[in-house]
Amino acid sequence: MLKKRSLQSAQKARKKNMVNLRFDEIPAQWYNILPDLPVPLPPPQDPKEGPSRLQNLPNLMIGECLKQEFSTERWIDIPGGVMDLYAKAGRPRPLFRATNLEKKLDTPARLYYKSEFFSPTGSHKVNTALAQCWYAKQQGFERVTTETGAGQWGTALSYAAALAGLKSTVFWVRSVYNWKKDRLSFMKLLGADVHASPSPITSVGKVLYDRNPEHAGSLGIAISEGLEDSQKDSKATYCLGSVLNHVLLHQTIIGLEAKRQFELFNDYPDSVISCLGGGSNFGGFALPFIADVLKKGKKIRFIAAQSEVAPNLQGKYEYDFADYAEMTPMLKMYTLGHKMDMEPIKGDGLRYHGCSPIISLLRNKGYIETIAYSRDEKHVFEMAKVFMEAEGWLPAPESAYSVCCAIEEAIKCRESGEKKAIAFNVSGHGFLDISGYRNVLGLD
Amino acid sequence: MLKKRSLQSAQKARKKNMVNLRFDEIPAQWYNILPDLPVPLPPPQDPKEGPSRLQNLPNLMIGECLKQEFSTERWIDIPGGVMDLYAKAGRPRPLFRATNLEKKLDTPARLYYKSEFFSPTGSHKVNTALAQCWYAKQQGFERVTTETGAGQWGTALSYAAALAGLKSTVFWVRSVYNWKKDRLSFMKLLGADVHASPSPITSVGKVLYDRNPEHAGSLGIAISEGLEDSQKDSKATYCLGSVLNHVLLHQTIIGLEAKRQFELFNDYPDSVISCLGGGSNFGGFALPFIADVLKKGKKIRFIAAQSEVAPNLQGKYEYDFADYAEMTPMLKMYTLGHKMDMEPIKGDGLRYHGCSPIISLLRNKGYIETIAYSRDEKHVFEMAKVFMEAEGWLPAPESAYSVCCAIEEAIKCRESGEKKAIAFNVSGHGFLDISGYRNVLGLD
Repeated sequence: MLKKRSLQSAQKARKKNMVNLRFDEIPAQWYNILPDLPVPLPPPQDPKEGPSRLQNLPNLMIGECLKQEFSTERWIDIPGGVMDLYAKAGRPRPLFRATNLEKKLDTPARLYYKSEFFSPTGSHKVNTALAQCWYAKQQGFERVTTETGAGQWGTALSYAAALAGLKSTVFWVRSVYNWKKDRLSFMKLLGADVHASPSPITSVGKVLYDRNPEHAGSLGIAISEGLEDSQKDSKATYCLGSVLNHVLLHQTIIGLEAKRQFELFNDYPDSVISCLGGGSNFGGFALPFIADVLKKGKKIRFIAAQSEVAPNLQGKYEYDFADYAEMTPMLKMYTLGHKMDMEPIKGDGLRYHGCSPIISLLRNKGYIETIAYSRDEKHVFEMAKVFMEAEGWLPAPESAYSVCCAIEEAIKCRESGEKKAIAFNVSGHGFLDISGYRNVLGLD
Repeated sequence: MLKKRSLQSAQKARKKNMVNLRFDEIPAQWYNILPDLPVPLPPPQDPKEGPSRLQNLPNLMIGECLKQEFSTERWIDIPGGVMDLYAKAGRPRPLFRATNLEKKLDTPARLYYKSEFFSPTGSHKVNTALAQCWYAKQQGFERVTTETGAGQWGTALSYAAALAGLKSTVFWVRSVYNWKKDRLSFMKLLGADVHASPSPITSVGKVLYDRNPEHAGSLGIAISEGLEDSQKDSKATYCLGSVLNHVLLHQTIIGLEAKRQFELFNDYPDSVISCLGGGSNFGGFALPFIADVLKKGKKIRFIAAQSEVAPNLQGKYEYDFADYAEMTPMLKMYTLGHKMDMEPIKGDGLRYHGCSPIISLLRNKGYIETIAYSRDEKHVFEMAKVFMEAEGWLPAPESAYSVCCAIEEAIKCRESGEKKAIAFNVSGHGFLDISGYRNVLGLD
């Protein structure tokens, strides 16, 4: 050997880079921020005209999720069955110290990233998909339905359904369905029934499909198909992957783990950063830290990294529909308007008109900052490459926004000399999105 | 909540599915089986004619790796710097109990799988790539060179070089280089310099390239180019990804972790299974358990899952070259002959003419069984789909052979009623190989 080291010194060295928890150290409860918000969360409302969406919610949603949506319990037990599934999905996920990146940036800041990219389907979406499918199974359902745009949510639900012993049906916006061959095969490998939307198998889809079998589709249409498909089958229920309170609740497992891991690092973040589309990964990572700000007087900066094609946190704070087709109740949120046309980007999961009501309220009260990056995504992907060359992990295009924002903050620290601890979430991996990097960065 | 469970019961439930270690529980030494083999390992030899390959080894290999190749120390400290890199790569990796798969197969067997698929590049290859690059850096090298066929090894070395602060040059068999666009972009994102082989930048490549710029290439040619490229640059060294003793040594981290994890499950395997091409993932997983057979009288079946296009363990046990171009010393191993033509398969990492000398010796002494699956790969991929629907993880095509063999053993247990514990290694993920599944299983 070049140089013998004692086990002790090897272990010390190791500690600098990564912390993971043992299987019996996973938090056993999710954190519900509703009772701790500075003001009560404005409840969903019906629009002035048309049928009541609120009264129809019990027919649309899994019973337990609907209860959680309005729960005022601060801590909600994670059922043992969901714990089993979290273990199957490889939780807990490590928290890494980005020592190589710090060196490369020559920053006095300490950079930490949470590794949701260890996910079986590639993103944090599995955290709520598993919970929802387990509850659906308990309630006696045999099938789940959903829509998907970029494909991350559809994949996660297909996965969770398979593990929970349910069938799954995914309505996938045709314009994406047509080219994401690998993601489609992945869902099929998981046993999912996947339809390009609009499809001929629902009445709302059939009208559009018959008019044009190559109709590009939209998330709004796909939602309508998923809802209709579940409504006409008493053994099926519909699942949603972001925006709602119970979805953010399930995602708090990310931040709760991260807090315990920060204790093992003997550190605490000054800044907490993630990308934000509907708000589920951002909320899941940030809310447990926001609790410390609200209740313990901690000072933390929270920064949401967005795209300028969908800077919903710079929109209006008002009641709006969550979907294009106006089938959902109206939610009080920052929104660009539910009919807003948004240009496609590689980080397609960030392309949503509104932000989750919980995050919106916190933004409105001044707890959350936001930054929106250029639609050409070149700078964002270049920063992801800097991260990758230093730390070795390929972020999902959406997560690249989180990485980019963290790097910019670290560079500011180099300039100011501030020794901040910066925590960011890498919500998914980019193995199924490499062509996006190739196109934007011209790697050919 | 449908049903409240105490934290304790949730934790108990969790324990059934998965065990991971804390960062400070990673084994701090690799296991070297050489002193424990039933007979001494036949040393490499020079061929009867031509220049001495043995005398040239110090010019070809990293000094520390060459020492390890012949070391008789049973335990070799993992340097702190390598530990750092293992932590960066997310080690340790969980050991899962395949509870859903057991149920689906209705088997009394207990199935456990090791999750090398958590790798940043998609396979176990990073375990030795990181060690080799760290040693290369210590020795003052600034660049590493290598060849790659399927692309897993080239990716792993690109990754490890980036993390260790080295440049990397990869010679990639042109027939694969031409179609694996994503893997090529992935290497480039990691900063690697990648050449289709034969290339015009080496003298051995140039002759072939000038004759035909679309020359399909071969692993043998790519090895020659990698060697030449390192030989003409005093700041560069060459790295190998399988077959050799020091490579298997580094990979024992897999089995050593698994043994500790079995203790936490309070169980011990009756069968240990993995796929086998050159032998590095099989050896890494199995050797620490074979030690218990050799030294503690434990009884374990070891099964190597292979392809019928390269059933090297059914070949002859004799001295043969490790490469097509006869540049390496001759190794005593099971071999199909180093000039053997082998049909391409999706599990391309299994397509190698010879098996590592250590595994070959153990096979010769009756410790290792082997099975070779059909070249159409349909059965293998169907079994991988069964695994995926139950456990949710997409195995690499190579790892699908390991999964398939484990499932067959579990089915035998159902028939015999035997309550065996079966351990198998899932050496990589299939995110970059989904088209292979699509083609073989007709998922379109």
